[in-house]
Amino acid sequence: MTRQNPSTDPIQWRDDALYLLDQTRLPAVVEYRACHTVDAVDAAIRTMVVRGAPAIGISAAYGAALAARARFAADGDGWRAGLAADIARLREARPTAVNLMWALDRMSAAVPAGAGDPFPAMLACAQALHAADLAANCRMGDLGAALIAPDSGVLTHCNAGALATAGYGTALGVVRSAWREQRLCAVFATETRPWLQGARLTAWELMNDGIDVTLLADSAAAHLMASGRVQWVITGADRVAANGDTANKIGTYALATLARAHGVRFMVVAPLSTIDRETASGADIPIEHRGAQELTHFGGREFAAPGVRTLNPVFDVTPAALIDVLVTERGVVERPAAGSVAALFRD
Amino acid sequence: MTRQNPSTDPIQWRDDALYLLDQTRLPAVVEYRACHTVDAVDAAIRTMVVRGAPAIGISAAYGAALAARARFAADGDGWRAGLAADIARLREARPTAVNLMWALDRMSAAVPAGAGDPFPAMLACAQALHAADLAANCRMGDLGAALIAPDSGVLTHCNAGALATAGYGTALGVVRSAWREQRLCAVFATETRPWLQGARLTAWELMNDGIDVTLLADSAAAHLMASGRVQWVITGADRVAANGDTANKIGTYALATLARAHGVRFMVVAPLSTIDRETASGADIPIEHRGAQELTHFGGREFAAPGVRTLNPVFDVTPAALIDVLVTERGVVERPAAGSVAALFRD
Repeated sequence: MTRQNPSTDPIQWRDDALYLLDQTRLPAVVEYRACHTVDAVDAAIRTMVVRGAPAIGISAAYGAALAARARFAADGDGWRAGLAADIARLREARPTAVNLMWALDRMSAAVPAGAGDPFPAMLACAQALHAADLAANCRMGDLGAALIAPDSGVLTHCNAGALATAGYGTALGVVRSAWREQRLCAVFATETRPWLQGARLTAWELMNDGIDVTLLADSAAAHLMASGRVQWVITGADRVAANGDTANKIGTYALATLARAHGVRFMVVAPLSTIDRETASGADIPIEHRGAQELTHFGGREFAAPGVRTLNPVFDVTPAALIDVLVTERGVVERPAAGSVAALFRD
Repeated sequence: MTRQNPSTDPIQWRDDALYLLDQTRLPAVVEYRACHTVDAVDAAIRTMVVRGAPAIGISAAYGAALAARARFAADGDGWRAGLAADIARLREARPTAVNLMWALDRMSAAVPAGAGDPFPAMLACAQALHAADLAANCRMGDLGAALIAPDSGVLTHCNAGALATAGYGTALGVVRSAWREQRLCAVFATETRPWLQGARLTAWELMNDGIDVTLLADSAAAHLMASGRVQWVITGADRVAANGDTANKIGTYALATLARAHGVRFMVVAPLSTIDRETASGADIPIEHRGAQELTHFGGREFAAPGVRTLNPVFDVTPAALIDVLVTERGVVERPAAGSVAALFRD
């Protein structure tokens, strides 16, 4: 059931190592970085070689497996404490995307109870998470696409695509399914400052799949909405709180507010691994701030006024009240709230 | 009454030529470009060596004076037709900012009726427009600042500063006056994609004046507003229609919509030369689209997915209903509308 373009396959386990498509260098350079150690995976997450909430979670899961292998090689049956420390460190690699913590909880639960090499069980768990994410994306793609009327224009933000997941994508999974079903007359992508995920990643992966995409400045979205050419804004999520409040790439909250003001519908597409039932509301979600250089430099060259103070939150929180639909692999929730979000987890 | 920091004096007439501070190279390089001909001025406007509605108008006025000098030198008393053609061409240099047309209307009216050298009269008119714009900015700065309660945070967009005018600035004139009167606890500036006027120009000119400024991505403005740290959004304008609808840098309409949603007030600061009584509403304002490279390249280097289609409108229209205050040199208009805008022009 794989609907994956191999050119946008961001995470591969092969030759006993994790290979990550280096997203800091796309689209100019398409190159996988081999990670043989948990340290390499940790660094890849921190430096955004791999990014996107689900992809971070899956990469961290493989990182935990690599840690298990190394600890058993170094410490024999005394591997347990070292592995726990490695997993604890991985949890700190990025603060906002809860898939990281979710995946490491799963990996911790998969640590064998007894002695002996923990690696096979850990690798099997990581591979299961990897496969499940791809399947979830394909399912969400179809569920989300079914909500979109023919001849619709859609706007997406950041990259919630194959590159941000095990493949196919969350928001871009919906775009892919809707495009295949010929429901879309236009796909717009914000460039997504400061890291330009839209210009670099979303445009590239959609073009690879033959999907027409039009790039615009983040600040042009309201003008576009006023033109009537967009019926849906579709984004992914880094963390959905128990009440449906959603943290996602900075600018998502702005788009949701603007969508509401223009009668444009707003769809969040996220697997259950992104829903954090332990976080009551958006106010409790930690928002990562990144360095000034993302706003002052490009390609190592400073363009801003030297020494200017910066404010660089890289996520914001969209209140549940602004979300028309939350699409998960367990079903679609209209106007998400605590009760309807909790219901997704019932068997 | 000049309150001009010489380092941010964008337009100078000296040594029988027009000198324009090259805004394509700021802040890395502070360099004036000499314009000895109308062609040089026309090119400087088209390539954004000079930008900002009032600054474009003043530069074009000097361009018309340079044209008068050259036509008289070349054609003697037959200068009139050539000068008219030069002025007509200058009118096409940029489409949205109406100050260009306004200034050239004034210059056309200043063309001497008889034979003989038209240059002295034309230069005098350009210099008068130049001086009047600076005076208007100082006046608007004080009028706008008076509206701002102590301990306010303000957010500005693009560069409506000294660099965009004869000096002191429209929106940044208000910021300067309010800062001097110690009304401001924080000044925020959007980076303003794609041309980065905020990061390059606004940050630089405010820092030159010792005004603390914090730079953020355009898409972070809603998150900032939700934090309660901003009480006013203050922008300039490229054209105000007769009904108060206002064209300004792309993203202004988004900020106005977001401001309204957050209970943040929205102020437009523009001299009467920016008000176009011949344009009934915002729907009639031509919106300039610029090339794809502004969204795909930086410093000559392509960063976006190669060949991606782009949508690059560089202005948008904010409906008058979203504007809390229009500040002009003739006074302040709350909730501008056709009647109150027309009243500004009555003696």
